[in-house]
Amino acid sequence: MDFLGLCTDLYELTMAQSYLENNKKGKAVFSLFVRDLPEKRNFLVCCGLETLLEYLSRFRFGDKELAYLKSLNIFSSSFLDFLKEYEFKGNLYAVPEGRVVFQNEPLVQIEGSLPEVQILETLVINTIHFQTLIASKAVRSYLVAKGKSLVDFGFRRSHELQAGIYAARASYIAGFAGTSNLEAGRRFKIPVFGTVAHSYIMVFDKEEEAFEAFARSFPRNAVFLLDTYDTLSAAKKAVQLAKKGVSLVGVRLDSGDIAKLSKQVRSILDSAGLKKVKIIVSGGVDEYSIKEWLSKNCPIDAFGVGTKFITSADAPYLDIAYKLVEYDGKPKVKTSPGKATFPYKRQIYRYYREGVMHRDEVVPYTTRNKGETLIKEILKEGSLSVKMPSLKEIRETLMKDLEKLPPSLKGLKKESYEVIIK
Amino acid sequence: MDFLGLCTDLYELTMAQSYLENNKKGKAVFSLFVRDLPEKRNFLVCCGLETLLEYLSRFRFGDKELAYLKSLNIFSSSFLDFLKEYEFKGNLYAVPEGRVVFQNEPLVQIEGSLPEVQILETLVINTIHFQTLIASKAVRSYLVAKGKSLVDFGFRRSHELQAGIYAARASYIAGFAGTSNLEAGRRFKIPVFGTVAHSYIMVFDKEEEAFEAFARSFPRNAVFLLDTYDTLSAAKKAVQLAKKGVSLVGVRLDSGDIAKLSKQVRSILDSAGLKKVKIIVSGGVDEYSIKEWLSKNCPIDAFGVGTKFITSADAPYLDIAYKLVEYDGKPKVKTSPGKATFPYKRQIYRYYREGVMHRDEVVPYTTRNKGETLIKEILKEGSLSVKMPSLKEIRETLMKDLEKLPPSLKGLKKESYEVIIK
Repeated sequence: MDFLGLCTDLYELTMAQSYLENNKKGKAVFSLFVRDLPEKRNFLVCCGLETLLEYLSRFRFGDKELAYLKSLNIFSSSFLDFLKEYEFKGNLYAVPEGRVVFQNEPLVQIEGSLPEVQILETLVINTIHFQTLIASKAVRSYLVAKGKSLVDFGFRRSHELQAGIYAARASYIAGFAGTSNLEAGRRFKIPVFGTVAHSYIMVFDKEEEAFEAFARSFPRNAVFLLDTYDTLSAAKKAVQLAKKGVSLVGVRLDSGDIAKLSKQVRSILDSAGLKKVKIIVSGGVDEYSIKEWLSKNCPIDAFGVGTKFITSADAPYLDIAYKLVEYDGKPKVKTSPGKATFPYKRQIYRYYREGVMHRDEVVPYTTRNKGETLIKEILKEGSLSVKMPSLKEIRETLMKDLEKLPPSLKGLKKESYEVIIK
Repeated sequence: MDFLGLCTDLYELTMAQSYLENNKKGKAVFSLFVRDLPEKRNFLVCCGLETLLEYLSRFRFGDKELAYLKSLNIFSSSFLDFLKEYEFKGNLYAVPEGRVVFQNEPLVQIEGSLPEVQILETLVINTIHFQTLIASKAVRSYLVAKGKSLVDFGFRRSHELQAGIYAARASYIAGFAGTSNLEAGRRFKIPVFGTVAHSYIMVFDKEEEAFEAFARSFPRNAVFLLDTYDTLSAAKKAVQLAKKGVSLVGVRLDSGDIAKLSKQVRSILDSAGLKKVKIIVSGGVDEYSIKEWLSKNCPIDAFGVGTKFITSADAPYLDIAYKLVEYDGKPKVKTSPGKATFPYKRQIYRYYREGVMHRDEVVPYTTRNKGETLIKEILKEGSLSVKMPSLKEIRETLMKDLEKLPPSLKGLKKESYEVIIK
């Protein structure tokens, strides 16, 4: 897909045509925010803005897209002409990627003529939702891992390929050391990791032959997978090989009673003087299992985190919306039960106490308070008005915010943070 | 991405290089299966094969991909040459899309030289997993909706754009009437639906002005969204407009007490003689709410099904694996606790009693039994050996299987089906 114009819902376009026909072309502001945080999230990590900007620049309608829309027989030719010329030329305000945010805070606000900003709804929600969802899940593992390495092993069970690629980006921002996903490695210059699967071990007649063969092929990456048949005997075979001079940098455990096995394997390795050999654990790993293992002092050096993180399994979506808050200078509110909205383009002020986040205030954009402002102007009339940060800089932004996050919000127990809407 | 070669995990390539270096190029068979069904699934709907075949044909390594792999400094130049020439030329056996399948049944089996089929692991799992996950979720709504229309409204909260597009495909196979997703509509010729959002209503000074304006723009599609401010007064306004001759084909309710509101709105419409005006419900709809509303005889004609279906929220992943089952003519098994595998390339035989599925047997491929065989040869030496069905034909395949499905498996209560592995 060169053009992304059809990456939208039909109703965005029927609305836009009707706006044009009814002369509703005034300046509108739409606000993207998460109403309530999921039960198992104490904060969110803003993520996906860079991707959104790329997608916005590709949100155009080429011949293929226009021919399809024409074939639906519902759009006027003047509306199709409007789409043919469409290019986003409005303003975009956003909380930078890597910042910690909370419920009811506008992550992205888009300002422009009403039809122009209405039709972006699906694209904006989809892009920011997914990466924010994943970064906010991944950071939980990062916080409980307390310095142990985490690697994204989730690509095979992401929801289609693209989700895997952007999840690797989001998890790198959230503190992961890298990913197994080569396309993400290439595209975002993220470190890539990986050694062998069980199939590799099974192909050789003897387990030790497989270990030795792999060490010969990749001496610097010689991580032996121990649980194809019996983890402890495999550990002993690894030790025998190491004694013979075969290179061994780590072992991986992918199943079984990890708490027990990691200690037994560590002891087998240590008794042989292989104290530098790392233990890597994978297979259904998430923040809960990491926390449990580390609380039992399991000697695990790194975790491969997969399916549960890449699908955000305990909260697979956020209650996110893109709502009209201002039109033609007038505030706009919806009063549907449970779905009420707050009017006006807004700014977020963040207040600290002794260097720790204390509360946020979400105020009309023109209100001038003291305090840190979170929302920046990113696009002005369609053009970048700031220098976009690198992936490493975004990661550092998050690390700084995590230092200032109230310690109670860093755990896995539900805690809340005060956000005042004024 | 023209080439998908990097849509894989690093370890697939390290294994492949090591296989080549250790002369492990014999014929291998890998089998893709779901170990246990999620608690909330009684069966799965095979989906994603057509997409997989397209992806396989694009699983190649161009200059960009090879340059990246070279830059990692871990691969040999002879291995990079192997990748440069790589093109899948093996055999693929699969259960056709739209068939109902169960635990431990091989959905896809791939046969070829070991390195050739190993490196497809991530791509094969990812592609079949996602669409099977979504079709298996969507069909639950289809079964409880008992003929009411279902439309995919989930695009905004799918995990990135691609997931939304393929989820629309999967849900159409699973019996949905269509989607709001225009790209899916174009690509797969799926009917598209949609009218207006709350923002449209909010832009006009009066709600009735918005209704009237939309009906003028799209008389054949005049569905009025009732819950922006107050659902019942909006329903009354819709009736007033209809009496004045404004076209009205349906109303949509997106929030509030749907059970109560749908009956009240129906009664308001009926009293005005608007019996043909449809009631469409959206907003957090899933199979549980559909079942509840219909059990209360709520007069709902169609459902917009969104976030919970498109993220398969109650089971966001399947316990799916791609495992080596045969190498060089020898059976291969893994004995890891909880992750044991069954050896050999296999066939599934399905047995019926009085036209209802009774049990399945998964037997070595060469075993000849009576009974229906589910697995077909799809690719022979890299080329299609069957005519691929259209999307409509796939949908009909599922509809026929649903007729033969034991009634107990069609409900939302956990029931199981016998699969014998021989």
